[in-house]
Amino acid sequence: MDGWTLSYDGFEPGQEGLREALCVLGNGYFATRGAAAEADAGEVHYPGTYVAGCYNRLGTEMAGRVIENEDLVNVPNWLPLTFRIEGGEWFDLSAVEILEYRQELDLKRGVLSRRVRFRDPQGRESTLVHHRLVHISEPHLCALESTLTPENWSGSVEFRSALDGTVINSGVPRYRKLAGKHLEPLEARQVDAERIYVKVETNQSKVQIAQAARTRVFRDGKRIEPDRRAVEKTGYAAHEFTLDADKGVPLTVEKVVTFYTSRDHAITECGIEAREQLRHVGGFGALLKSHAIAWSHLWNRFDIGITANLPNRQAEHAAMVLRIHVFHLLQTVSLNSTELDVGVPARGLHGEAYRGHIFWDELYIFPFLNLRQPEITRALLRYRYRRLPEARAAAREAGCLGAMFPWQSGSNGREETQQVHLNPKSGRWLPDNSQLQRHVNVAIAYNVWQYYQVTGDFQFMAFFGAEMLIEIARFWACLANYNEELDRYEIRGVMGPDEYHDGYPDREEPGLDNNAYTNLMAAWVMWRALEMFYSLPYDKRDELCETLVVREDEIAHWEDISTKMRVCFHDDGIISQFEGYGDLLEFDWEGYRKKYGDIHRLDRILEAEGDTPNRYKLSKQADVLMLFYLFSAEELEGLFNRLGYDFDHAIIPKNIEYYDARTAHGSTLSRIVSAWVNARADRPGSWDLFVQALESDVADIQGGTTAEGIHLGAMAGTVDVVQRCYTGLETRGDTLWFNPRLPEELEDLKLRLCYRGHCIKLDMTPERMELTSLPSMAGPIKVRVRDTMHQLVPGETKVIEL
Amino acid sequence: MDGWTLSYDGFEPGQEGLREALCVLGNGYFATRGAAAEADAGEVHYPGTYVAGCYNRLGTEMAGRVIENEDLVNVPNWLPLTFRIEGGEWFDLSAVEILEYRQELDLKRGVLSRRVRFRDPQGRESTLVHHRLVHISEPHLCALESTLTPENWSGSVEFRSALDGTVINSGVPRYRKLAGKHLEPLEARQVDAERIYVKVETNQSKVQIAQAARTRVFRDGKRIEPDRRAVEKTGYAAHEFTLDADKGVPLTVEKVVTFYTSRDHAITECGIEAREQLRHVGGFGALLKSHAIAWSHLWNRFDIGITANLPNRQAEHAAMVLRIHVFHLLQTVSLNSTELDVGVPARGLHGEAYRGHIFWDELYIFPFLNLRQPEITRALLRYRYRRLPEARAAAREAGCLGAMFPWQSGSNGREETQQVHLNPKSGRWLPDNSQLQRHVNVAIAYNVWQYYQVTGDFQFMAFFGAEMLIEIARFWACLANYNEELDRYEIRGVMGPDEYHDGYPDREEPGLDNNAYTNLMAAWVMWRALEMFYSLPYDKRDELCETLVVREDEIAHWEDISTKMRVCFHDDGIISQFEGYGDLLEFDWEGYRKKYGDIHRLDRILEAEGDTPNRYKLSKQADVLMLFYLFSAEELEGLFNRLGYDFDHAIIPKNIEYYDARTAHGSTLSRIVSAWVNARADRPGSWDLFVQALESDVADIQGGTTAEGIHLGAMAGTVDVVQRCYTGLETRGDTLWFNPRLPEELEDLKLRLCYRGHCIKLDMTPERMELTSLPSMAGPIKVRVRDTMHQLVPGETKVIEL
Repeated sequence: MDGWTLSYDGFEPGQEGLREALCVLGNGYFATRGAAAEADAGEVHYPGTYVAGCYNRLGTEMAGRVIENEDLVNVPNWLPLTFRIEGGEWFDLSAVEILEYRQELDLKRGVLSRRVRFRDPQGRESTLVHHRLVHISEPHLCALESTLTPENWSGSVEFRSALDGTVINSGVPRYRKLAGKHLEPLEARQVDAERIYVKVETNQSKVQIAQAARTRVFRDGKRIEPDRRAVEKTGYAAHEFTLDADKGVPLTVEKVVTFYTSRDHAITECGIEAREQLRHVGGFGALLKSHAIAWSHLWNRFDIGITANLPNRQAEHAAMVLRIHVFHLLQTVSLNSTELDVGVPARGLHGEAYRGHIFWDELYIFPFLNLRQPEITRALLRYRYRRLPEARAAAREAGCLGAMFPWQSGSNGREETQQVHLNPKSGRWLPDNSQLQRHVNVAIAYNVWQYYQVTGDFQFMAFFGAEMLIEIARFWACLANYNEELDRYEIRGVMGPDEYHDGYPDREEPGLDNNAYTNLMAAWVMWRALEMFYSLPYDKRDELCETLVVREDEIAHWEDISTKMRVCFHDDGIISQFEGYGDLLEFDWEGYRKKYGDIHRLDRILEAEGDTPNRYKLSKQADVLMLFYLFSAEELEGLFNRLGYDFDHAIIPKNIEYYDARTAHGSTLSRIVSAWVNARADRPGSWDLFVQALESDVADIQGGTTAEGIHLGAMAGTVDVVQRCYTGLETRGDTLWFNPRLPEELEDLKLRLCYRGHCIKLDMTPERMELTSLPSMAGPIKVRVRDTMHQLVPGETKVIEL
Repeated sequence: MDGWTLSYDGFEPGQEGLREALCVLGNGYFATRGAAAEADAGEVHYPGTYVAGCYNRLGTEMAGRVIENEDLVNVPNWLPLTFRIEGGEWFDLSAVEILEYRQELDLKRGVLSRRVRFRDPQGRESTLVHHRLVHISEPHLCALESTLTPENWSGSVEFRSALDGTVINSGVPRYRKLAGKHLEPLEARQVDAERIYVKVETNQSKVQIAQAARTRVFRDGKRIEPDRRAVEKTGYAAHEFTLDADKGVPLTVEKVVTFYTSRDHAITECGIEAREQLRHVGGFGALLKSHAIAWSHLWNRFDIGITANLPNRQAEHAAMVLRIHVFHLLQTVSLNSTELDVGVPARGLHGEAYRGHIFWDELYIFPFLNLRQPEITRALLRYRYRRLPEARAAAREAGCLGAMFPWQSGSNGREETQQVHLNPKSGRWLPDNSQLQRHVNVAIAYNVWQYYQVTGDFQFMAFFGAEMLIEIARFWACLANYNEELDRYEIRGVMGPDEYHDGYPDREEPGLDNNAYTNLMAAWVMWRALEMFYSLPYDKRDELCETLVVREDEIAHWEDISTKMRVCFHDDGIISQFEGYGDLLEFDWEGYRKKYGDIHRLDRILEAEGDTPNRYKLSKQADVLMLFYLFSAEELEGLFNRLGYDFDHAIIPKNIEYYDARTAHGSTLSRIVSAWVNARADRPGSWDLFVQALESDVADIQGGTTAEGIHLGAMAGTVDVVQRCYTGLETRGDTLWFNPRLPEELEDLKLRLCYRGHCIKLDMTPERMELTSLPSMAGPIKVRVRDTMHQLVPGETKVIEL
């Protein structure tokens, strides 16, 4: 283990789905699936690849309801490349005796490899070595190379190299009853002696997808030209050819594939581009070279290097898992995707779960990206900006002003949250109120503000960010009702991040009142909207006011709300998760753990018992604790004080302890937040939670959900715990703040940060931190380490003793 | 005439094409045609609208050669709205007696209006008032409103409101023999009682285009609900309804149209979006209000205000023509188009000439845009960047390194220059060598550099600009051959901007050697590439070198070429347009003027006589003078000195006089350059040329070419003469330079400029200039006025006596 290679020795059929999701290789809008599924059957039969989750919708039926629009669709499978010896059966891993098996995902170079030695029923022993890449800087290219070496035999081998447009969506078992066929075949044929070609169209969104493949053959490294047979079927094209194999002489088949959709830029027609661009493309070796260079540049920018003092290679494991997380993040979004109209799907492009919808997970993902390559977050925020008209329409329909972004955002930005869901434990379909999580709107505003703080990109703020902040502030202003008696504003009938509470046990209508997270964040949004408003250039402000019809009394109203939002408390300083939380029953954690073992899905357990989580003091994920995750104590104190509430710093550990004890961690995001908020007060406890969070996907701790798609929020969140929590990094008041506190386990931490045009190398140990701003044309920046303010200019190195 | 309204009184059928082109109303990728064509037949029968010229290609045949790809395609016509009285013929302007006619293009609000009073053969007198807009901030919306008032009659009137997808490309008479049908009808139907819908697909590029129209009816301003009849034909849908008209009571029909293509962002499927978004849209009045606000903001940013001392309202005319030019520029590119993969077609989106291809005209357009809204040029430069792979492939095919951008760039960036053209004077098809104008590559590099100078956007430079500069520098380095004897580099076999010279009269192969403009600009590109290279942050430079495989000896080679490029001279200080120019014959200008009158197309005249311009000292446009247009004397001196040539400033007027006398102004761009380079030495002459250039389109000085599409380079160029030439504005060395010299005719000049994050108001008279930087967060900038350096900070006003 070198910290850069995720490897599996031995073939384990039961681990296919997990390995498949973890070894996904893709980039931008084009992610391939399938390492372990490949292992399943030699080189064939992968479910396929995905087109960007965000612009086509699933055509699914659910409990009788047809969801008409496609959000995530498998694209034609470019991987099929298989063989059979002496006219036997096509290669099948389960029908041979496996002598050796090793699968490796090389994170550094972005290459998936597999080496299998096997003996077939006829006693023939062979080695099969396979490498695959999806090019990270040439978003239309992918390639694979497969080498078969006969070890104790000679004879004829027939190969088949295909493109398969007949794939369906079937990656999530519980969705399989729903409509899964989304591709209409348009063309499938041989182009010439080397090339085959497939073109399909998604049947609802009418996106055309074209692939062309060029297959070349080498004996002992020398190119040979076998005669090909073309197979042309509806939605499927292949080349077949037969080679004479000699004992000990490797036969290599190289397949290079181009991929275009009708939404790509700089094309005439996607089919023509797929076929023609293949002419200019080099072989596997050349592609691997440029691909590896591009990955090395990405790692320069995105790597997170930790040295830990841990037994049993745990340190190397943790370092590698962090890299796996960065790797998968970059498979989903990168500079390639900034050209496209795509968001960040909660499960990446790695599986079909959540159907490619866009959730609030951005809140956990963007802060990491902001500080590494803010161009990516800028593009992702514009993805939201483009859907502002739909969010405005949704607000209007709900009788509100401003913009109401949906909980689950589909292709054109409309609400796609399911209205019912199945409890597999009880077999019952239940109403799903999760779209009442209006707090997604604060996540978007928070991200706009964070991006702006990190970059100082006031052009973005003036043209896009301000409009989003204003419309979101308006929405909250509309939702907040003035309670004359209390002289406070209240928000009623919403859900917080804790999805185990969707209402009061004794109330008909769903939703909760005065959810602390929602109320405080709404007040914070108002405050930031005011700050932004007064800092805009006058002329731009005037234009915005005219365009959006912002009135003076509206601004005054925001001011009022941002100083009078209600927060409920109970038990002497506990921030009530929502009004009335303190009156709920305590939950019998021990009893249920004894009874059920794994109780992270308490919602399902209780519903199956005829009970409901709404009666108890329990959370799916840390709801109130989100506040300590998003804000430093200083910032939170400012917010409480502005609202006229005292803020004794002692309430922080008190609340953390209170809610930690009542959290089921039913979401992968929950442990991130708990690890974060405990990092200073309970360092060992925090480290344990962090290590658990690291395992979310690599160990599939939710028992099977990783195979349906990795958890991108948790992946980015763990990296961000290291990047921002351990360094105490904040960006506010035009200053880069550090308040470092490394866990005892960490000896050294190396990062590279982007801040206001500076590219900063950070090297931190428990005793000192070293900051180097690489030479550039950026102006000086303010850096505050603990209580000392520094100025940093490009080319300068600062060493600060801690 | 208020300087904001282009108006025509009286109906002149012969002027249709011109008026149509000048009154085009569109935005972004969606431009409508048709003011005067509309006048032709009431409210019906317009050729249609355009989809962005840059992503679909014309299917044309030319001299037997089929050009397969579409670059510019008419989109379905949304305008059809007509009527007939008492079951008579559908309204036809040529079949009625016109009592009054007035057509107005309101530049300030972007509204096209027409008022017609007419008497039909039955003696019925009526007034028809029509308003139309294509929304400038809601790029999917357009609307029209038509009001018919019976003056001396009552009776029944039948209306028809349609969407017509059966349009063809037929706007350029000489292209009409070529394939003009590009749309395949997909759907055409009534949606409900108010809405109709049409969807088509371009037949080569497979772009789907959907439109939906909502028609509402008002009697005396009050909404009425007539019964509709749906007309549904292939590619055509309409609503028809009959109303009772009462003498003196206005009947108003309002038509609001949504427009989506399959390439749009934030959509599910273009047809669904077109139909559904129409639900959220207000009426004509509401749209006009938001549209006018958006235009007012555009004018805040883009207006150019001149006060001139001229007789006969010439001053107001000149001021208005400048605004017409800005207006049409903004019809073609604006913030709306930055979301799309579009370039700037040479003829805008206003006509079919040049088929939407992208030329070097950017060189005249971007400098104006850089200083007003650089986000637009950034997006347009990225349009080129996306086509870098195609330019690289073209260079490789030509046996070169680097990138060779094509002379006429089609949808995917490939060369689309015609290989033959017709001389209508001789009827002969002739070989067309214009693709030898490799200098388009210097235009792109120049624009990258100018954008960078104006904005200081080093992120753009690092990620996109540097790669383009390096690849273009490489291309020139490959084209430049070292002449050992002279110790100079030479570029052979190319064409300069002067298209009348495409070779030597006595040489078989086309192309010229050592074209001064090309050679000097190539040297300048090397120089800038080196400057850029050494100013990049080290890490970014290392990455680029690794990605692009830039070697040290390559950099040294650029250094060498940039100091040893050859320039030829003749006649004691005249820069030879190309090697051997001095040996050509003098042309008999007077004789030909006498014989032919208009001699601006000398190429056609001479070819028809069996002669060729290649034999003479004559130019289509000022080739050498381009140097004085692009560079100040100081900058040019630096370039010549670096090359080891003396540069006596006296050669400037000498060369200007020499080449001015030998230029036919066969291109609209030529007068811009001549007006510019003469502005200091020959102020009256320069003003005359400027006034002629202003008339290029409004008076259609090339006799008919405006109807085929306005000349966007000339439009932007005239505005830029005022903006940069008269103010002596330069952006170099991180400094904003002014060296003002207003023409005697100008009393005052008002502009707004964007420079390095500053928004600067400029007010200039012959005696003083006032600069105000509006409040913003930008850092201080250096401003040099003549020989004095100033510093300007946001919020500050500087008044400088001249």
